[in-house]
Amino acid sequence: MRDRVVVIGGDAAGMAAASQARRLRTADELEIVVFERGGFTSFSACGIPYWVGGHVTSRDALIARTAEEHRARDIDLRMRTEVTEIDVDAARVRARSAESGDESWLSYDKLVIATGAVPIRPPLPGIDAPGVHGVQTLDDGQALIESLGAVTGRRAVVVGAGYIGVEMAEALLQRGFGVTVLNRGAEPMSTLDPDMGALVRDAMSGMGIEVVDKAEVVAVRTGADGAAEAVITDSAEYPADIVVLGIGVRPATELARAAGLPLGESGGLLTDRAMRVRGHDTVWAGGDCVEVLDLVAGRHRHIPLGTHANKHGQVIGSGVGGDYATFPGVVGTAVSKVCDLEVARTGLREKDARAAGLQYVAVTIESTSRSGYYPGTAPMTVKMLAERRTGRLLGVQIVGREGAAKRVDIAAVALTAQMTVEQVVQLDLGYAPPFSPVWDPVQVAARKAVAAVRDRR
Amino acid sequence: MRDRVVVIGGDAAGMAAASQARRLRTADELEIVVFERGGFTSFSACGIPYWVGGHVTSRDALIARTAEEHRARDIDLRMRTEVTEIDVDAARVRARSAESGDESWLSYDKLVIATGAVPIRPPLPGIDAPGVHGVQTLDDGQALIESLGAVTGRRAVVVGAGYIGVEMAEALLQRGFGVTVLNRGAEPMSTLDPDMGALVRDAMSGMGIEVVDKAEVVAVRTGADGAAEAVITDSAEYPADIVVLGIGVRPATELARAAGLPLGESGGLLTDRAMRVRGHDTVWAGGDCVEVLDLVAGRHRHIPLGTHANKHGQVIGSGVGGDYATFPGVVGTAVSKVCDLEVARTGLREKDARAAGLQYVAVTIESTSRSGYYPGTAPMTVKMLAERRTGRLLGVQIVGREGAAKRVDIAAVALTAQMTVEQVVQLDLGYAPPFSPVWDPVQVAARKAVAAVRDRR
Repeated sequence: MRDRVVVIGGDAAGMAAASQARRLRTADELEIVVFERGGFTSFSACGIPYWVGGHVTSRDALIARTAEEHRARDIDLRMRTEVTEIDVDAARVRARSAESGDESWLSYDKLVIATGAVPIRPPLPGIDAPGVHGVQTLDDGQALIESLGAVTGRRAVVVGAGYIGVEMAEALLQRGFGVTVLNRGAEPMSTLDPDMGALVRDAMSGMGIEVVDKAEVVAVRTGADGAAEAVITDSAEYPADIVVLGIGVRPATELARAAGLPLGESGGLLTDRAMRVRGHDTVWAGGDCVEVLDLVAGRHRHIPLGTHANKHGQVIGSGVGGDYATFPGVVGTAVSKVCDLEVARTGLREKDARAAGLQYVAVTIESTSRSGYYPGTAPMTVKMLAERRTGRLLGVQIVGREGAAKRVDIAAVALTAQMTVEQVVQLDLGYAPPFSPVWDPVQVAARKAVAAVRDRR
Repeated sequence: MRDRVVVIGGDAAGMAAASQARRLRTADELEIVVFERGGFTSFSACGIPYWVGGHVTSRDALIARTAEEHRARDIDLRMRTEVTEIDVDAARVRARSAESGDESWLSYDKLVIATGAVPIRPPLPGIDAPGVHGVQTLDDGQALIESLGAVTGRRAVVVGAGYIGVEMAEALLQRGFGVTVLNRGAEPMSTLDPDMGALVRDAMSGMGIEVVDKAEVVAVRTGADGAAEAVITDSAEYPADIVVLGIGVRPATELARAAGLPLGESGGLLTDRAMRVRGHDTVWAGGDCVEVLDLVAGRHRHIPLGTHANKHGQVIGSGVGGDYATFPGVVGTAVSKVCDLEVARTGLREKDARAAGLQYVAVTIESTSRSGYYPGTAPMTVKMLAERRTGRLLGVQIVGREGAAKRVDIAAVALTAQMTVEQVVQLDLGYAPPFSPVWDPVQVAARKAVAAVRDRR
């Protein structure tokens, strides 16, 4: 009798796992059932801001592979069907079809939990009013786009100044809205150190985006028609024809919690190297619902990102298919942009280093994207952290107009290899005047870090 | 009594060494004398094609630091003064001023040899005729630019299809010339494997650059005025109003050879880790006149590049100044472009791997610079070599329209860290739709390489 694997969640991690397992095992060897409670599979949530902004013109472009394409590969994909319970002891899940309302149990030999994340929506007055939009699903994006066309005013308020927040600010600006970003922290982009976040705020202000720091949202005011009219903070009120929530997400692990599976500090599932849920040989988990090992900090964190989800899926599919692969962990790389401003980070911020018990030096340098004399060269700020005494690279943050985002990959690889800043100085990186100064900006920072480590034995 | 360091050669390596030594030692502690036979210091030879092409409008923009600026930092820089002999036993050099013709000996406590490279100019009939241009020095560039303005015809022939050759082809195209590139090999860019070089040729042809492969130049035909009129190969004749030689360079080590210093297979000086000439505690050498350790092939090679020269200078200056630094070697990274085509390589080509005794698998993939749905995404071809059995990364070549050049840095760092292709697959690289697909093209290649290594145990 053939084995059955049940996958809960048909987005990046779940479908990558299903696809990889199918590559390794035929339909005669392995039955693959995927439950997806929504109406889409394998879509790029990261692409939603660019669809809203008009860069991407069709929703379907964001769908990497449709339900039909998955089914054509012998994956039994059941859309709009929500798993309501995991019974680990009996190795079965209960699922309910949204259309028929039918609910039934299905047993599994292997289980993959890929339930993703849910947007944080604080329980504030008016938060669920028409005109208040999340941007996590394609349905969210569609609703927002329709709303943008329908509203008469042109004021948009974005709540949250993280990646989604700043990307949505760009999108709304490009759709002709006046944009206010309400930021809870002292600086936008709290994934950066405050000094680097300040560069992002200054650039956003220069683009005409109003960034309000230390703004604690307390309510959404609604009008006579029940729709959002303004966002109220602890100190002011911001008129809004459209409100977009970009506050972040948390792991969707209610099912896992109810099943008694192990969760970490952030509420994400805890797995072993092969992405099996700890203590459970036949249950895997991956994507936005798990915690990942931060290789630099030496602890587990919740980092919801499409790249990790895809890698998890590939590792899980290999395991489910009887092959061998592991996910070693992450170094915390993330890149984004606001209009022409590129923002990148990897490794630890100052506060992360402190929390990890690491003593460090931090340096910041100004360099350029190309040789100084080459036309189009743009300024770039690089901040680098290195461990005291050992000189080991701990983190890099880059803000610039061009070539800043992917340059962080140099540091991401160096962090993975546990290189010292001395080693980074001597890396044989690509150089030609249109692409880099003779010392790459990352190496300029590394040279300063070497001196700083030396000065502070 | 203060020590005296004599530096032979006032370009990247020599002046970087002098500057770094000066940072560490005051003028009271260390006298620094630099002999430069030419008329410029610290200029970017890599920038010459862009100056000729009109992207860089002034010669002075290519000079990182002028002779006066160096002198203001207490460096005794003697321009147009050529060292004609090194007497290692007596620790002295003989130098001749081009202006006065005076020749005299100067003793040193420490010597730095940074004599650079000389362009290869085969002894063919007509090769020294007016209208035939090298592009190694600022004087070369100036002469070529003046020539471009003076000639009446618009036919240019570039001899050589390496980095300089293709960059000069772009420059001349942008100056309105019809350009023919005469290439000795079967494909342009012999620093790439032939299959990747073929992509470059196809792209160049698409830009309107005529690339003639397997063309052995036998003479330059001159007209009644003595100037170049055509380039003659073993099979055809190519009319030329301008001829540019981009055949490559060899280490300028005649002085070192005469002094009995150790040279490698390519004629470059051999040094230790601290860039001291082997067997000589008080003689350093760096830049285009030395061989460097290729960390992947495990042998020394001559790789003339401004990045290496600057690093050498910094290491040498540290040693001369009494501090400690080493140059670990290179992995063979190089990037370039022809109009909007970016070309990058690092590590070993197939023939390098074979010559090094390494068995390997080679894979090639097609991917894109951004998410497939993001506007402006451009195709990218990545070729990857991995060692048989171990799966260790051996080399990467990338050809694409955007984001191809600096992407090779991912592989350059991974090569330095001796990562396997499995490890490359799991790297935490920057992802956002405007900058990369969810699997970076380098990782797409690594995934295929993992499978290929497995298939060929």
